[in-house]
Amino acid sequence: MAAQKPGIPKGTRDFSPLEMAKRNYIFNTIRSVYALYGFKQIETPAMENLSTLMGKYGEEGDKLLFKILNSGDFLHGMTPDEITGTSTLKLAAKLCEKGLRYDLTVPFARYVVQHREELNLPFKRYQIQPVWRADRPQKGRYREFYQCDADVVGSDSLLNEVELMQIIDSVFQKFGIRVCIKINNRKVLSGMAELIGRPDKLTDITIAIDKLDKIGLDNVKAELTANGLSQDEITRLEPVFAIKGDNSNKLAAVRELLKDNETGLKGIEELEFVLNTLQTLPIVNAIDFDLTLARGLNYYTGCIFEVKALDVQIGSITGGGRYDNLTGIFGMPGLSGVGISFGADRIFDVLNQLELYPKDIASAAQLLFINFGPKESAHCIQLASRTRQAGIRTEVYPDSVKMKKQMSYASNSNIPFVALVGEDEMKNNTVSLKNMETGEQRSLSIEEAISVILQ
Amino acid sequence: MAAQKPGIPKGTRDFSPLEMAKRNYIFNTIRSVYALYGFKQIETPAMENLSTLMGKYGEEGDKLLFKILNSGDFLHGMTPDEITGTSTLKLAAKLCEKGLRYDLTVPFARYVVQHREELNLPFKRYQIQPVWRADRPQKGRYREFYQCDADVVGSDSLLNEVELMQIIDSVFQKFGIRVCIKINNRKVLSGMAELIGRPDKLTDITIAIDKLDKIGLDNVKAELTANGLSQDEITRLEPVFAIKGDNSNKLAAVRELLKDNETGLKGIEELEFVLNTLQTLPIVNAIDFDLTLARGLNYYTGCIFEVKALDVQIGSITGGGRYDNLTGIFGMPGLSGVGISFGADRIFDVLNQLELYPKDIASAAQLLFINFGPKESAHCIQLASRTRQAGIRTEVYPDSVKMKKQMSYASNSNIPFVALVGEDEMKNNTVSLKNMETGEQRSLSIEEAISVILQ
Repeated sequence: MAAQKPGIPKGTRDFSPLEMAKRNYIFNTIRSVYALYGFKQIETPAMENLSTLMGKYGEEGDKLLFKILNSGDFLHGMTPDEITGTSTLKLAAKLCEKGLRYDLTVPFARYVVQHREELNLPFKRYQIQPVWRADRPQKGRYREFYQCDADVVGSDSLLNEVELMQIIDSVFQKFGIRVCIKINNRKVLSGMAELIGRPDKLTDITIAIDKLDKIGLDNVKAELTANGLSQDEITRLEPVFAIKGDNSNKLAAVRELLKDNETGLKGIEELEFVLNTLQTLPIVNAIDFDLTLARGLNYYTGCIFEVKALDVQIGSITGGGRYDNLTGIFGMPGLSGVGISFGADRIFDVLNQLELYPKDIASAAQLLFINFGPKESAHCIQLASRTRQAGIRTEVYPDSVKMKKQMSYASNSNIPFVALVGEDEMKNNTVSLKNMETGEQRSLSIEEAISVILQ
Repeated sequence: MAAQKPGIPKGTRDFSPLEMAKRNYIFNTIRSVYALYGFKQIETPAMENLSTLMGKYGEEGDKLLFKILNSGDFLHGMTPDEITGTSTLKLAAKLCEKGLRYDLTVPFARYVVQHREELNLPFKRYQIQPVWRADRPQKGRYREFYQCDADVVGSDSLLNEVELMQIIDSVFQKFGIRVCIKINNRKVLSGMAELIGRPDKLTDITIAIDKLDKIGLDNVKAELTANGLSQDEITRLEPVFAIKGDNSNKLAAVRELLKDNETGLKGIEELEFVLNTLQTLPIVNAIDFDLTLARGLNYYTGCIFEVKALDVQIGSITGGGRYDNLTGIFGMPGLSGVGISFGADRIFDVLNQLELYPKDIASAAQLLFINFGPKESAHCIQLASRTRQAGIRTEVYPDSVKMKKQMSYASNSNIPFVALVGEDEMKNNTVSLKNMETGEQRSLSIEEAISVILQ
């Protein structure tokens, strides 16, 4: 067979050791904070039944699902006419029973319903796994990427919202990324739609408002007109865009605006509880009640959040919100949930741009023993067994090749210390320990070398 | 839409919080030992080009690959005749450009060739990711399961074999699983096939020998006969089965047997180096030169290893070996490698059966604050913020429901400590800390409570 040119499918990535070290730093940081708040990890299979996934992400989403061809005779007696006479999407559903998960939310809802008998509600779960979407690949958008979700289901308490905001604050504090956490409430948006007499246009209104930052007021108005709102309705919406000030000013203004709207006032109350409670806690990052925050997903029903990095131009790096009926579609109505999702790929970029990764992240091993030959390396693997016992990540260069090659292996691998053990060192029971950063070289006992490296 | 009965594809699994805690314990233990030896983690995409995967696992393997239907118009102008007139496997290859990875070895070989310019050889990588096989699901065999591989490529040195055996020893020591590490060498097996004049029958001979343990000598002989070996050839092979004793006895006997066979002697030398070197190192588990160890995979060319648990009846829980030309198929010949793979699912079962998991593995949170109402919970979330600062995994029950319900949440979640903070405690600035195991309850300051929990 001719040799193949190796490659990977477009929109997918290999992760090199350095990239993995950075990604593990991100995942471990998020994981540790989730755990600190008592969230428990679960995992679900990469493949779900297509019936679990179809219809959950809109028509576009159905197309973007990766579908897995049934094993064996996947045409199972279909006639040629049936094959060519069926629409692509319907035929795909016949050839494929399974698909790759598209997010972690629908599999989680499926999990909760399927395992309802075993669950100890409220159920606080986190999940860090890849998802797949047959999107057109482009810069920063991949066909395989990780999501890092935490959700609480089975509790209506707003303390859950507070806790998730604390988690967001704590994670970005650990990363050293300065952020603004934006919060809004879907009930406030509903209230505004009701206020102008167009509750039917809630989605159009939220979508248009969501763009205020990007396209400006005039374009938002034009879009609302195009979506069938009258001049009068738009005029009645306009005070909303004029609301300014700190959180309590804005809350007061919106409360005044929505004073006769029950839904809207409920939303304001929820926001007040969350914001007031957060003021009693040691929160470091700014929290901003942002009336123009809408978030695209239809299933949100209460508080919604989004996080913007302050020092890098990039879209939202975390988001979430309260949903009241995610498990309904799987036959378990009335279970409220609230969750957040960290955007690991964007956080990766932000940490890169701001150079916020820990300094030693590029070093896999901390110590390399140079291999001078069979006798020396036989001695070195015994020393290495002691340095590893002391917790030092240690390599012994496996081949006795030229010193220069071994030194450049150490330097390319960012190994901070190199131990040279030749005949003299073996005789004297020492190692020559070279600090690769300073170039300094010292003759030490192995115990001394261990404490130098562990310093 | 009618509510769906939720389920997952056969052969796949959800992992509950307790299962995840156990799996993380396994993966983190393996990961930490790999890291201690300077191995670096990489990840490759779940989807590979089907051309990368096809033909690498034999005819049966091609059928067991999960194939992903092309997006969009996957029939792209095929005529009905073309569709029904093509064999299932060929048609699948037309409808599908991508497949799910089947193991971590082929993607790793592809990775090495694709990234050859960036690699710092010898390249020591580890990889812990799921793989997918459309096998018939059965007890202990899944369609999605994790592999935990470590390989060194770009070094012929037998020190790599030694290091991998140290890693195996160290991992099972950490788990507390007593094992026997079996070692053999493919060159010795080749030597034996050459010895009886049937190098063409190497595969049949190794497969038959591999079964000696299970089916006994007579059946092995019958199988060899059925595979076309003459009575005379089998008789000349028989001394091999009679070899007994400790490793050095067995090595001496095989050396004598193969004294005129260059390949075989090379294998013996390699084994002697590895076994002698290991004797100079603090290895805890037994290492057994086992002439009947063959391992199914064709690509092995040197030392091969397999690990058996001593206290549980189960197949091999780890395996590996040296291969001389894995990257050849992707156009990079002559690169030698050696690797091992831990069987996480079987190790999971062994740890369960022997009850070797750490005692606190079932506890996500260490402390739960009971919620007595809005005033009390507002106070408790501030205390929780201090216990978390101290590193204690803490929950505040979000709803002020009946005490009994909250206590049973704590006990079902295996939370070892519960803090009760009512009006009195708020007044006195104390918490009533209940040890859930002993039932003991003490009134303490938050600082005292923290040190009790951290004890």
